[in-house]
Amino acid sequence: MRLISTLLLLLLITVGSSSASPTSWRKRVREPCKRLVFYFHDIVYNGHNAKNATAAIVGAPAMANRTILAGQSHFGDLVVFDDPITLDNNLHSPPVGRAQGFYIYDKKDIFTAWLGFSFVFNSTEHKGSINFAGADPLMNKTRDISVIGGTGDFFMSRGVATLSTDAFEGEVYFRLRVEINLFECW
Amino acid sequence: MRLISTLLLLLLITVGSSSASPTSWRKRVREPCKRLVFYFHDIVYNGHNAKNATAAIVGAPAMANRTILAGQSHFGDLVVFDDPITLDNNLHSPPVGRAQGFYIYDKKDIFTAWLGFSFVFNSTEHKGSINFAGADPLMNKTRDISVIGGTGDFFMSRGVATLSTDAFEGEVYFRLRVEINLFECW
Amino acid sequence: MRLISTLLLLLLITVGSSSASPTSWRKRVREPCKRLVFYFHDIVYNGHNAKNATAAIVGAPAMANRTILAGQSHFGDLVVFDDPITLDNNLHSPPVGRAQGFYIYDKKDIFTAWLGFSFVFNSTEHKGSINFAGADPLMNKTRDISVIGGTGDFFMSRGVATLSTDAFEGEVYFRLRVEINLFECW
Repeated sequence: MRLISTLLLLLLITVGSSSASPTSWRKRVREPCKRLVFYFHDIVYNGHNAKNATAAIVGAPAMANRTILAGQSHFGDLVVFDDPITLDNNLHSPPVGRAQGFYIYDKKDIFTAWLGFSFVFNSTEHKGSINFAGADPLMNKTRDISVIGGTGDFFMSRGVATLSTDAFEGEVYFRLRVEINLFECW
Repeated sequence: MRLISTLLLLLLITVGSSSASPTSWRKRVREPCKRLVFYFHDIVYNGHNAKNATAAIVGAPAMANRTILAGQSHFGDLVVFDDPITLDNNLHSPPVGRAQGFYIYDKKDIFTAWLGFSFVFNSTEHKGSINFAGADPLMNKTRDISVIGGTGDFFMSRGVATLSTDAFEGEVYFRLRVEINLFECW
Repeated sequence: MRLISTLLLLLLITVGSSSASPTSWRKRVREPCKRLVFYFHDIVYNGHNAKNATAAIVGAPAMANRTILAGQSHFGDLVVFDDPITLDNNLHSPPVGRAQGFYIYDKKDIFTAWLGFSFVFNSTEHKGSINFAGADPLMNKTRDISVIGGTGDFFMSRGVATLSTDAFEGEVYFRLRVEINLFECW
C-alpha cells in the first residue's frame, strides 16, 4: 500500500505540474540550441568607390545636406546593403553568404541605427536564411538584436544576435562580428 | 485493484495527453505573462522645429511634392524617429527609454503606416529592448501590432502591442499610448 | 506486484521525458497548424499610372539616376506598397485584404529585395493581420520569408511564407502568390 501511495503522489505531481505550466508561462532554459559566429563587411558608397561598395545611402532628411547630417550622427540616413559574410575577420575570405537589408540612423546626438536584414546562405554548409530586427546603439561595445525567424536550415528559428564592431575605416568600411544564439530550434 | 486501475487510467491520460500535444499544436493560454503601458512622443520636423523635433521625413515619392502628398494621406513618406518614452501622458515627464525606428505611410486614401521600431531601455527599472513590427491603420481608435522579439529584461519576448493615439497637434506632435501584452516570457 | 512495477516504470518515463525536454530543445512537429494561399497585386507608379498605382518608389541612391539604377538591378530603390489581396490570380477579383509595407532592392548584380510588410484583413472571413519579414531573391521560382507575428484571427502566429511570382508585365505589374504555412497557432 505504501508503494501505491507513493505512485499516487508521483502521479499527482506529474499531472499537476503539467496542467499548471502551459507553454506561455513555463520558465524556459536559457541555453542556446545553436550558436554561430560570422563576420560581415559593409563598404558604404562615398562617391568614389562604386565598384567595391556594398551599401548605399538611399534616403536622407530634407532638412539637411550631408555635411550637416554628419554633424548630427547621420540622423535620418537610410542605408541599403548587400554585404559578404565570412567565417573569419578577413574581407577577402571566401564569402559563405550575404547579409542583405537596411539600417536607418535614428538619433541626433549619438550614433544609433535600426536594423532590418537577413543572412542568406546557399552553400554546402548552410542553406536558408536568418532574419534579424532591432536597435543598434553602435557606439556600445556589444549590442543585442532579435532573431525574428528563419527558413531552410534555420526553419522557424528565434534567438538573440550580439553585434560588435570588429573594425572600421573612416566612414567607408565597417566590419561587424555577429554571435548568433538560437533558443528556438525546430 | 481498483486503486491500481485508477492509477493506470490516470497514467494513460497523462502519457496520452503529453504525446498527443506537441508545442505547435497545443492550445495555449491567452493570458499575458507581462503587461506594460507606456507613452511615446513623436515631434515631426516641419522646417521650423529642428531643436525639438524627434522625427524627420527621409523618403518621399518622386511623383509628388509635399502639398500633393498631404492630399494623399502622406502616401510614401518614410519617417525616422527617436522619441522619448514616458510612464504617463506628459511629454515633460522624465523619459524611461527611447522609441527608435521608422514608419512609412503606405496608403493613398486613408492614413495608414507600416512600423518597424524598438523600445530601448537603460534605466534602473528596465534594461534591454522590445522589438515591434506591423501595420498601423492610425485612424482606428486602437490597432494591434506584433512584439517580434526582445533582449535583456525582455529576452525572447513575443506578444501583441495595442497602440492608440492619445493626443495630437496638427501634423507635428503625436502622442501614442502603447499597451504591451507579452504572451511568451523567458 | 508486476502491475505496480510497470506503473512505476511508466511513471518514471513520463516524469523523465517531461523534465528532459524543455520547450527550447524539444523536436517539434513540422506540420502546419494553418495553411493559407493568397495573391497580391503590385502596380508600381511609373509616371503615367497615378490612378491605378498601388506602389511607389520613395528612396533611391544618390549615386545614380533611374536609368543607371535599372542597369544595376534597381539596387537601392525603396518601394512602398498598398496592394489588394485576392483569393485567385485575377486582379479584378474582390479584394479580401490589403498587403501593406515596403521592399528595398538590395543587390547590384541580380534582383533581390528585403521585405517588411503585413497582410491586413477586415472581412467576414478574416479579421486581423499577419506580419512578414525576410529576403526575397526574386529571380528564384520560390522563396521563403518569415511570418514574424500576427494579431486578431492570427494572434501570435509564426511560420514561413513561400512567395512565387505568378505573373508580371514589364516593370509595372507584379502578381505574387503567397502560400502561408503557420507552425505556431494560438
